[in-house]
Amino acid sequence: MKRSSIIKAIIVAVGSELLTPSRTDTNSLFITDELNAIGVDVVSKIIVGDNRKELATVVGEALARADILVVTGGLGPTDDDVTREVVADVLGLTLRERPEIMDHIQKKFSTRGWTMPEINRRQAMVPDGAEVIQNPNGTAPGLWIKDGKKPTLLLPGPPRELKPMFIQFAREKLCAMSGGEPLVRRIVRIAGLPESHAEELLRPLYLEWEQSTPPVTVTILAALGQIELHLSARASQRSVAIEVIDEAVKRVTSVLGNDVYSTDGLKLEAIVGELLVQRGFRIAVAESCTGGLISSRLTDVPGSSRYVDQGIVSYSNEAKSSLLAVPEVLISSKGAVSSSVALAMAQGIRIRAGVHVGVGVTGIAGPDGGSVAKPVGTVAFAVVLPDRSETRVAQFVGERALVKSQASQAALDMIRRLLLGLPSVSENNSKFSLTDQTN
Amino acid sequence: MKRSSIIKAIIVAVGSELLTPSRTDTNSLFITDELNAIGVDVVSKIIVGDNRKELATVVGEALARADILVVTGGLGPTDDDVTREVVADVLGLTLRERPEIMDHIQKKFSTRGWTMPEINRRQAMVPDGAEVIQNPNGTAPGLWIKDGKKPTLLLPGPPRELKPMFIQFAREKLCAMSGGEPLVRRIVRIAGLPESHAEELLRPLYLEWEQSTPPVTVTILAALGQIELHLSARASQRSVAIEVIDEAVKRVTSVLGNDVYSTDGLKLEAIVGELLVQRGFRIAVAESCTGGLISSRLTDVPGSSRYVDQGIVSYSNEAKSSLLAVPEVLISSKGAVSSSVALAMAQGIRIRAGVHVGVGVTGIAGPDGGSVAKPVGTVAFAVVLPDRSETRVAQFVGERALVKSQASQAALDMIRRLLLGLPSVSENNSKFSLTDQTN
Repeated sequence: MKRSSIIKAIIVAVGSELLTPSRTDTNSLFITDELNAIGVDVVSKIIVGDNRKELATVVGEALARADILVVTGGLGPTDDDVTREVVADVLGLTLRERPEIMDHIQKKFSTRGWTMPEINRRQAMVPDGAEVIQNPNGTAPGLWIKDGKKPTLLLPGPPRELKPMFIQFAREKLCAMSGGEPLVRRIVRIAGLPESHAEELLRPLYLEWEQSTPPVTVTILAALGQIELHLSARASQRSVAIEVIDEAVKRVTSVLGNDVYSTDGLKLEAIVGELLVQRGFRIAVAESCTGGLISSRLTDVPGSSRYVDQGIVSYSNEAKSSLLAVPEVLISSKGAVSSSVALAMAQGIRIRAGVHVGVGVTGIAGPDGGSVAKPVGTVAFAVVLPDRSETRVAQFVGERALVKSQASQAALDMIRRLLLGLPSVSENNSKFSLTDQTN
Repeated sequence: MKRSSIIKAIIVAVGSELLTPSRTDTNSLFITDELNAIGVDVVSKIIVGDNRKELATVVGEALARADILVVTGGLGPTDDDVTREVVADVLGLTLRERPEIMDHIQKKFSTRGWTMPEINRRQAMVPDGAEVIQNPNGTAPGLWIKDGKKPTLLLPGPPRELKPMFIQFAREKLCAMSGGEPLVRRIVRIAGLPESHAEELLRPLYLEWEQSTPPVTVTILAALGQIELHLSARASQRSVAIEVIDEAVKRVTSVLGNDVYSTDGLKLEAIVGELLVQRGFRIAVAESCTGGLISSRLTDVPGSSRYVDQGIVSYSNEAKSSLLAVPEVLISSKGAVSSSVALAMAQGIRIRAGVHVGVGVTGIAGPDGGSVAKPVGTVAFAVVLPDRSETRVAQFVGERALVKSQASQAALDMIRRLLLGLPSVSENNSKFSLTDQTN
């Protein structure tokens, strides 16, 4: 354990909004991932408001404890953006205006036909000796300050500005100076099992991993309808850590089988997309309670126009009949939320669109509309392939948004299983009880 | 500015898992809300791992900066739970075993038929003079330490243990000692303006608010397509703070006009829903590049089945023709991404669904499909009402997911403006330039 050789970073997030009950710093999650990958440990994260005195104290204390400091936020043009000034001050450096930054900011405005407000001039101030990090997505440049007490990286707060700047510039700079033991992480994604079942099946592996060389650290993260297993190992050689992690991933797959849908962090909609492309299939989705969420997730994937033909959100019963040719008598006899209607929706859109895969989802998202026989959270699913069709009714817990998200996850997982030629629900659940699994 | 009378709290969250890329401290959001309500300000939040040395440094520094310290996590029975020992040590207090806690923990185990593991004995250790806070949902008691350098509250990390303990005990204790002035918050939501324009228009108000009695604190938070203004005021009487905030909200609305869509935290989709209900209108949305996201957002609102009839995701050109009766010649002459096609989509779905409001959105979400004339991020919108129809073409920046989310926001805002009888884009932008605003 040569932990002492590991470089320690502290992340400081600046912004009074991050100290309210409705917001918190999330940039640090991305930054931590990046730092860990090059062998840098994050030993503390600090949130502080747009307050010169507080920020100066925090930065001073952090510089004493850390080898590298990453400060995010407070680089905007307004009066309450004080990061640049305070950090330069604590590091004992003078700020000067850089003409090339002024040019860049002025161009950003003029390409949109706007005049640069005078306040944006502050964003061109740079401490002596600092390197400027270009911001392709905004006006606030980042700063890499090596000449202060400790290497310090300043990045703007908006994630879409911060992330590419970190990836393009900071990664390389930090890696060159870290020399730490690289940490290798992998995320294994699991669907179709409740967390307690997954945990029970995986328990024997935890002991194996604790005793392996190097040991594998595991964290299980469960949201409704989705389980993530975060595996990590650290070794002086990256290849050794990768080997240990590869082996651990194989063990998970051998235990959980097809409940593992991704071992490289890919989302379920991307996996479904890959399977559709492999089979040369196009898909069309008819949704009721999920309101377009399944189509939206499928089309979140770049290139999804190759296999997504259309989606229909048939919220009203009339829309189910007129758009999907679901017989009205079926709705009145079986109820809008039933396997029969889900199947008719899937068949209806499949024929209408002339595609290989038709999907139908109908349910009660709540808070109203539930009954004793079909409580809020009841959702019926149907998937129709050229050679096979399946239906399923599940019962989800939680409020409207949770029912929608669980139902979209269950639908995508059902499509995945059918495309793989598997049963529509996980067989692992049968090891625990006879009832249908519900999340 | 009687800020000096305000009690300052720092929240320290302890746990190495909170320093990984997949987890962060969220207890502090709840705690901040509780503290603010009794007039205590949170000036900083710190996350630190299960590490004695780091925690001791952090607690020492926090005690120097804050009037009250709240420490969460690290009260479990295992070796890496070090909060109790470290805090007692930094405060200069001795830990002693309390028999009544031992009894409580032993009972917790025996009622489940288990024997208490010896390690749980650590949870009965209490610093001299500390008050014990019962934990109905777990074994780790909380501690309220008044005799140290500063009042310090220790609570266990699991939210379901922490929350009731805070509510039942800490609320009253902290309120008694704070004598603080209650804080009142309001969130004003704005669409149709870029942040810099909003900021420029609001600047005169900032000065007014600084000088009002009591002063109003403001934070502006901008994401693409959405601006939030967080206003807060503090007064010895809650009613006075509410009055000042009400007045501030009125001033924002007088300056920004209809760019303000919500003054009570409601989301844009909920506001659109309210307007539809008021007018007795039903809506149907035809989407291409947004892939169902607009329908999904509209149906996120409880009760939306009253006004959402259907949605069509016409991803392929064939779907646009067959489902929405968009003439193929229109697509080939004007291009799939054009005002004409958006309008035909909106008209098509409006007639098909037999509803009052038809919406059409077609664009290039990327990363592929862009051209010089129509780069990635180009999106055409159309909204058709019984007595009026409008189209608009906008250009958004960023990657696929960002284009989708900005386009969905712009579409909902356009629906809102038309339902209100307003022009389809904000007139405030004309104060800045002649070009169409793009976010």
